[in-house]
Amino acid sequence: MEGRDPKSEEPVHFDTHPDRYKHWRIESPPEYEGAVARLVMNVPEDGGLRPGYILKLNSYDLGVDIELADALQRIRFERPAVKAIEIRSGKDRIFCSGANIYMLGSSTHAFKVNFCKFTNETRLYLEEMSADSGISSVAALNGTASGGGYELAISCDEIVLPDDGSSAVSLPEAPLLGVLPGTGGLTRLVDKRKIRRDLADTFSTLAEGVRGKRAVEWGLVDEAPPKPQFEGAVKKRLQAMASRSRRKPFKPMELLPIEAKRSSTGAEYKYVSLTLDPKARTGTLTVRAPEGAEPKTPAELTTAGCSAWAVRAFRELDDALLDLRFNHPTIGTIALETRGDPARVLAVDAMLASNLDDGLVREVVLHMKRVCKRLDVTARSFFALVEPGSCFAGSLLELALGADRTYMKDSEDEPVTIALSQLNAGALPMGNGLSRLQSRFLREPERVTRALETKGPIDTKTALALGLVTFAPDDIDWDDEIRIAFEERASLSPDAMTGMEASLRFGGPETLETKIFGRLSAWQNWIFVRPNAVGEKGALSLYGQPERPEFDWRRT
Amino acid sequence: MEGRDPKSEEPVHFDTHPDRYKHWRIESPPEYEGAVARLVMNVPEDGGLRPGYILKLNSYDLGVDIELADALQRIRFERPAVKAIEIRSGKDRIFCSGANIYMLGSSTHAFKVNFCKFTNETRLYLEEMSADSGISSVAALNGTASGGGYELAISCDEIVLPDDGSSAVSLPEAPLLGVLPGTGGLTRLVDKRKIRRDLADTFSTLAEGVRGKRAVEWGLVDEAPPKPQFEGAVKKRLQAMASRSRRKPFKPMELLPIEAKRSSTGAEYKYVSLTLDPKARTGTLTVRAPEGAEPKTPAELTTAGCSAWAVRAFRELDDALLDLRFNHPTIGTIALETRGDPARVLAVDAMLASNLDDGLVREVVLHMKRVCKRLDVTARSFFALVEPGSCFAGSLLELALGADRTYMKDSEDEPVTIALSQLNAGALPMGNGLSRLQSRFLREPERVTRALETKGPIDTKTALALGLVTFAPDDIDWDDEIRIAFEERASLSPDAMTGMEASLRFGGPETLETKIFGRLSAWQNWIFVRPNAVGEKGALSLYGQPERPEFDWRRT
Repeated sequence: MEGRDPKSEEPVHFDTHPDRYKHWRIESPPEYEGAVARLVMNVPEDGGLRPGYILKLNSYDLGVDIELADALQRIRFERPAVKAIEIRSGKDRIFCSGANIYMLGSSTHAFKVNFCKFTNETRLYLEEMSADSGISSVAALNGTASGGGYELAISCDEIVLPDDGSSAVSLPEAPLLGVLPGTGGLTRLVDKRKIRRDLADTFSTLAEGVRGKRAVEWGLVDEAPPKPQFEGAVKKRLQAMASRSRRKPFKPMELLPIEAKRSSTGAEYKYVSLTLDPKARTGTLTVRAPEGAEPKTPAELTTAGCSAWAVRAFRELDDALLDLRFNHPTIGTIALETRGDPARVLAVDAMLASNLDDGLVREVVLHMKRVCKRLDVTARSFFALVEPGSCFAGSLLELALGADRTYMKDSEDEPVTIALSQLNAGALPMGNGLSRLQSRFLREPERVTRALETKGPIDTKTALALGLVTFAPDDIDWDDEIRIAFEERASLSPDAMTGMEASLRFGGPETLETKIFGRLSAWQNWIFVRPNAVGEKGALSLYGQPERPEFDWRRT
Repeated sequence: MEGRDPKSEEPVHFDTHPDRYKHWRIESPPEYEGAVARLVMNVPEDGGLRPGYILKLNSYDLGVDIELADALQRIRFERPAVKAIEIRSGKDRIFCSGANIYMLGSSTHAFKVNFCKFTNETRLYLEEMSADSGISSVAALNGTASGGGYELAISCDEIVLPDDGSSAVSLPEAPLLGVLPGTGGLTRLVDKRKIRRDLADTFSTLAEGVRGKRAVEWGLVDEAPPKPQFEGAVKKRLQAMASRSRRKPFKPMELLPIEAKRSSTGAEYKYVSLTLDPKARTGTLTVRAPEGAEPKTPAELTTAGCSAWAVRAFRELDDALLDLRFNHPTIGTIALETRGDPARVLAVDAMLASNLDDGLVREVVLHMKRVCKRLDVTARSFFALVEPGSCFAGSLLELALGADRTYMKDSEDEPVTIALSQLNAGALPMGNGLSRLQSRFLREPERVTRALETKGPIDTKTALALGLVTFAPDDIDWDDEIRIAFEERASLSPDAMTGMEASLRFGGPETLETKIFGRLSAWQNWIFVRPNAVGEKGALSLYGQPERPEFDWRRT
């Protein structure tokens, strides 16, 4: 099945704008006076990101999800008045029928996995908006929500389904396609909505799904009013959400297009560079510190807009990570580097940390958090390199703490330092709910405090003693040791590295989020390479054809 | 790779005895006066369970692990004086080199996965002995422990490694074989020993491993004394364990051989029947209630020995589950049934529940717990059928609560009931640390109390209202509904069912145990079907040959 995705050579780009959306509309229904954004999904059948499949019945591909992710981001920054989101379909009788099967069937394994990862991230963003930003959401199912359609609905806080005798919710992946509801579906059934496992089992094998009152009884939806009361029920929930929201007001920050010079060997942004060595299967991802004056107050941040370093650098980093995932699949080992004046990074962090109750600052820090989490679940090996001229300080130190290893030069001639800021103390948590420092020091939690209490620049020997870096080669050994580390890593099985990193990066507690990426996705990935799904006679391959799948019946 | 395991037609049997061990010796070193059992692993090269591979360097196959599991079980029941276990090698300079690679390379995917599951269960038993039975363990590494050898060591409470310049601990699976340390290795590194993730990353890619002081510094072992002090250090730890153990004394209970009439369509035991329908790919697993008088006191239990129902029925059930896993891979859907007088089951439960502070009773209940957990992680669909004449009461109700669904007949003519006992209140927890009732009612925890407060027989309508059963077809519908349920389930992709059940059975909190089965094993299973490991040019396939593996470098 490898190598089959049509036009796989063409790079995917993630930067978009509502003016260019093909699949979604952001409406502002006047009756809510700006407090509610309505996201309307209306996928044109010929609107696929790549040729070769038709997006019937509001099914989606990566292009549809890129727009949804963009819409959520813009609501955060550009529409501070929004306190609740309604998600509905622009079509009659169908809310959304999930990921397009023919798109999946014609994609490589690597693309399928990365597609699911991105859609999972976007659905988690909906939940983060509710938990951290005071923007709750209602899935207004004006029609059937099946597969990924129901997985989108279950990512919202509340679900309303009309009891009209036909609209249903369903997860037909297992019975119809021989795969899993892997965009969080199974996990959210039992861990978010806490549906009884036997009912969840029945629901997940019932291709036709569940309607009306039974859907409410089983906990699959929150309300199933008769059709005439449907709009009123949705409205009531949105109004309640808006009125209990504690979202802080702020002036909108427009998200301007991300400027990048892209080539086959990387991308160059203002604050970020991605430089690839395809032959060695390695790359370098560099983030630069601010160069000039940065906002000293939330008001100045508003004026600076998205050109402020804290926004721009992290938007660029996010874009570079997605570029790496989708457009450079063979680059397995990445050097994480930073360049510039750590004091400038720390000044930005200090401003943000002392204004976390400001609405805009809050969104900026949450965005940083999401980008750092994107790094955590990117299936590439990351080695941070701390050298003279680097600025692994505060928010940028999170990159080193998120790396699989950190090498810090022990130089006699030039100073090499790292530094912590208030943002390392919990403002940028991982998916497991812990800070990267806490995740690092599960064995000796007192080291978290010791690190946070260490003020000012930390030299190599101290960093090593504090446990903040892995290795500290000296000037003489540095070049060889780094070269060998990258060569060795890049020589190992990419699958083994992915499975190993997924296991080692998330020690400690589990959350809905880590369960989705670490557990559900792993089972889905397994199934996605099994002949029972993707073989010539597999259920996913044969979907829509008259032929029945043929299974190897051995259970594993 | 499917279908390649040599002599895969020959069934595997799990019942053994120290007199027949080929690979392990249980010693009782006199200096500890019976408080320490020494398990000595000395695998003969030609002692493989199946032909086609040589068990070099104390590497193991399923046969080796069956003996270890048996030894641990016998220490629990037959050697109540034992308060600490020493695990060591009977060979010089090598402790254990892990699962035999040629055995793995020549096995089917289904066998590899089930082999790893069994070895994982056995290692968890070591930890349960320490946590619940007052029997701690020391891995006395009189030589290198690599791969599964180190995974065995890390399952012990403490690890002593001589600092002799050559003995090392290592996890070379990823760098040498392109697979994971999937017998709990990666999970225990970060979650049990809480090793810093960057050090765990380095260790897990370092084929030659780590020795001496560095192994202590990184937290990989607890102590690395010079060779002459090695035995003294081990002894000191064992003595300390034995002296702080709170194991209650009791009279030994000898575990007699399990009696079974086995055939290609199942197995017949005294209290358990396994009946298979290979054509339909379904089976029925029936557990019968006690028939005569059962022990009313711990003293009577001692006299009854392993013929007591509470021991014998659950040993037989355990054996039947393993038979199903290894010898009947295509039987995907199992009816769980019970037959007999529920009052007799409840009487046994009452005796056990009111004597949980008795040493022997404690072991009997812990054994029941382990067998129920074996059911939870068995990759088959289980539907419990509650009918007239069944006895889903107390400890046997756990089978229905552990099933994927429960059908209870709503009969006008004959009484159909279930019942709870004190043992449903937490004495038989799942791997996630919750009782099956708690796992069932994550959404409405008050239902746990409501169910436990319902005394006496519970009829079908009440059971349905309490949420204890899934469906309650009446006499007229029963046959058709059950037939259709089994036919439908048995028609679905076995892989999708495995992934779905692994996701739905364990809602709520995660533990080391659920992380191993739900997360690490899923990644390992994925890697076990990837060409980078098991393809013709894969690392696992080419191990030991001069040819280098060829990888598809795309990261997923």
